[in-house]
Amino acid sequence: MKIAILGYGTVGRGVDQIIAERVDGVEVTRILELPDRLSDPRMTASYDEILADEEVELVVECMGGVEPARTYIMAALESGRHVVTSNKAVVAAHFADFAAASVASGAGLFVEAAVGGGVPWIASVEKVRRIDDVSSFSGIMNGTTNYIVDAMRRQGADFAEVLAEAQRLGYAERDPSADIDGIDVLNKTIISASVAFGVACERDLPASGIRNLTKADLDLFAARGRTVKLLGRGVSEGGRYAAAVEPVAVAADSLEANVPGNFNLITAVGATVGELKFYGQGAGSLPTGNAIVQDVLDCVSGTRRPVYDFTSQLAYDPTLLRADYVLRTAAELGDAEPYGPGAVVVRDLTAAGARALLDEALATDPTTFMAALAVEE
Amino acid sequence: MKIAILGYGTVGRGVDQIIAERVDGVEVTRILELPDRLSDPRMTASYDEILADEEVELVVECMGGVEPARTYIMAALESGRHVVTSNKAVVAAHFADFAAASVASGAGLFVEAAVGGGVPWIASVEKVRRIDDVSSFSGIMNGTTNYIVDAMRRQGADFAEVLAEAQRLGYAERDPSADIDGIDVLNKTIISASVAFGVACERDLPASGIRNLTKADLDLFAARGRTVKLLGRGVSEGGRYAAAVEPVAVAADSLEANVPGNFNLITAVGATVGELKFYGQGAGSLPTGNAIVQDVLDCVSGTRRPVYDFTSQLAYDPTLLRADYVLRTAAELGDAEPYGPGAVVVRDLTAAGARALLDEALATDPTTFMAALAVEE
Repeated sequence: MKIAILGYGTVGRGVDQIIAERVDGVEVTRILELPDRLSDPRMTASYDEILADEEVELVVECMGGVEPARTYIMAALESGRHVVTSNKAVVAAHFADFAAASVASGAGLFVEAAVGGGVPWIASVEKVRRIDDVSSFSGIMNGTTNYIVDAMRRQGADFAEVLAEAQRLGYAERDPSADIDGIDVLNKTIISASVAFGVACERDLPASGIRNLTKADLDLFAARGRTVKLLGRGVSEGGRYAAAVEPVAVAADSLEANVPGNFNLITAVGATVGELKFYGQGAGSLPTGNAIVQDVLDCVSGTRRPVYDFTSQLAYDPTLLRADYVLRTAAELGDAEPYGPGAVVVRDLTAAGARALLDEALATDPTTFMAALAVEE
Repeated sequence: MKIAILGYGTVGRGVDQIIAERVDGVEVTRILELPDRLSDPRMTASYDEILADEEVELVVECMGGVEPARTYIMAALESGRHVVTSNKAVVAAHFADFAAASVASGAGLFVEAAVGGGVPWIASVEKVRRIDDVSSFSGIMNGTTNYIVDAMRRQGADFAEVLAEAQRLGYAERDPSADIDGIDVLNKTIISASVAFGVACERDLPASGIRNLTKADLDLFAARGRTVKLLGRGVSEGGRYAAAVEPVAVAADSLEANVPGNFNLITAVGATVGELKFYGQGAGSLPTGNAIVQDVLDCVSGTRRPVYDFTSQLAYDPTLLRADYVLRTAAELGDAEPYGPGAVVVRDLTAAGARALLDEALATDPTTFMAALAVEE
């Protein structure tokens, strides 16, 4: 099969390399690149030229960002070409449109690489759903923030210091907002909930990040046998679902607490299979490239053809996600009990209610940090 | 598709239940049971009767043990019927014969449920191998021994006490030898190495268990930031491979160290995807039943048809697995350095050499316990 790659950054180059070195029967014949970077005879700056090439049957989109990725993906699907994408932003924003276009034209839509890098998460959730209802999912879905929190904990370093090191190593962007404010995890959570629950997931989910996490916060939780991880979570029961992104204070002896560096660990709970966890590199040229090539091979071999049918009647109900929340803040909060020096716990909030309370506290104390308390097993 | 279940114990009943409640298009029409237990119109005590039923296209074998399971599986494959089995003992003993019969008749051979219960390990390794060479695998593959070690560590209890509790809960057999001496893990390691490396794995692998593990041993390792887990491991490089089963003293902050209760966690390392870990229930009616039904669905839908081609020229080379070994023993050992009270460390042994040293020490001190020291990252 002849395929085109849109975007020749880290991931695009990884895909090209893996296919050239390790895959028979698939050939990258076209690459979309910027006009001033056309360094390879396969490259063009014109997407129309790629669309006009009847031999190209599949398009790998790894440009990132919403536009022009959205337009290119829709055009590919509408022309009957299969699409494999690692672009979480565009899938989170337009999953339902892509799914409908895919169903209409019969073209395949593969999004494994958009969540969890090399972790075989999306295909595994689809497989679980052949037999089980997925009652919940939860996980570390962002390598950058896990690297930061893990280094803060193991080295006793503070946030700014570790972030700077992560930027130096290329694990964090120069503008780290998408990672540290939970936007990247929000996109991955929307995609995961859509696949896990078979619903076009609500996009306006409660989300907060780790921008204000300090070494003292980690010490406070460590003294109570916990550490903090940024988790994307979703739950479904009784015809309703909810999802959220927030720092969670997990037990220090949980698997999540011990995930090192920039790895990801994502859990699905199925009715008969119980708890399944999937761990691997959450980013990087070769792991993410591997996830894309696995999707390409599924498509070429016909062994997997995901059909995203978002006609489910599940209703979004944010009250399904409840927890006790710890806030380290100078703000005065009603209904709060002491948790530790400078910190209080507020009992039994919804994730949405907690996000509103965080905003209230941030208005008084912009350094406020909030984490949900994971229920002890 | 009409299928037969051979053996109606915990797993067989789980398969029957899951198919009846959750799967369309598959029907259990025949069940092989003992003559005095024929409580269902689908049951027969005659395998010949099942083989004579032309409508049965697939046989689920979950009887356990080597015979008559081997004879029944061979007969099914030779008659062109697909086989799905959870029986690690018979697959470890006769994988090459089954694979050859499967290739000859074109019938499918599915062994997901033989390793790791509900953990999607075998299919995941096959998927990794579409792109990557698997350079190594390693994991907790036995829920009973993990339950024992985890309870000893968390509750500070001793081996015999926890074993008795595990037997009471049904996690351990009345005769626990297969679990605590590493035989069960040996079978799973042979199967995993065969799938991961594409070779009919040597069966005479070094193997030891946790029968002699004491609370004092765990305390000794805990003081050095480690805990003990029984691991099956394999490695392949330069046209050679090795595998072994032994207790390993892993870092206390590794994921392996923190696997609770009777869960399994198995790791594969691929060239491009890096480290992948898979976690789930290692046993039980519904998780193992789920793994079997996933195999059945792969077969029915045609989405996965494993072909085990064991013509690889990989040579078994036990010198590939080397480590430092700690022995808690009253025996006098040459080349040993002190490790702690009553314990010594012997440097750079092969797994086979360590197993021989353990036998030597056991001859003097039958309470000797040995564990490999995992390399610190």
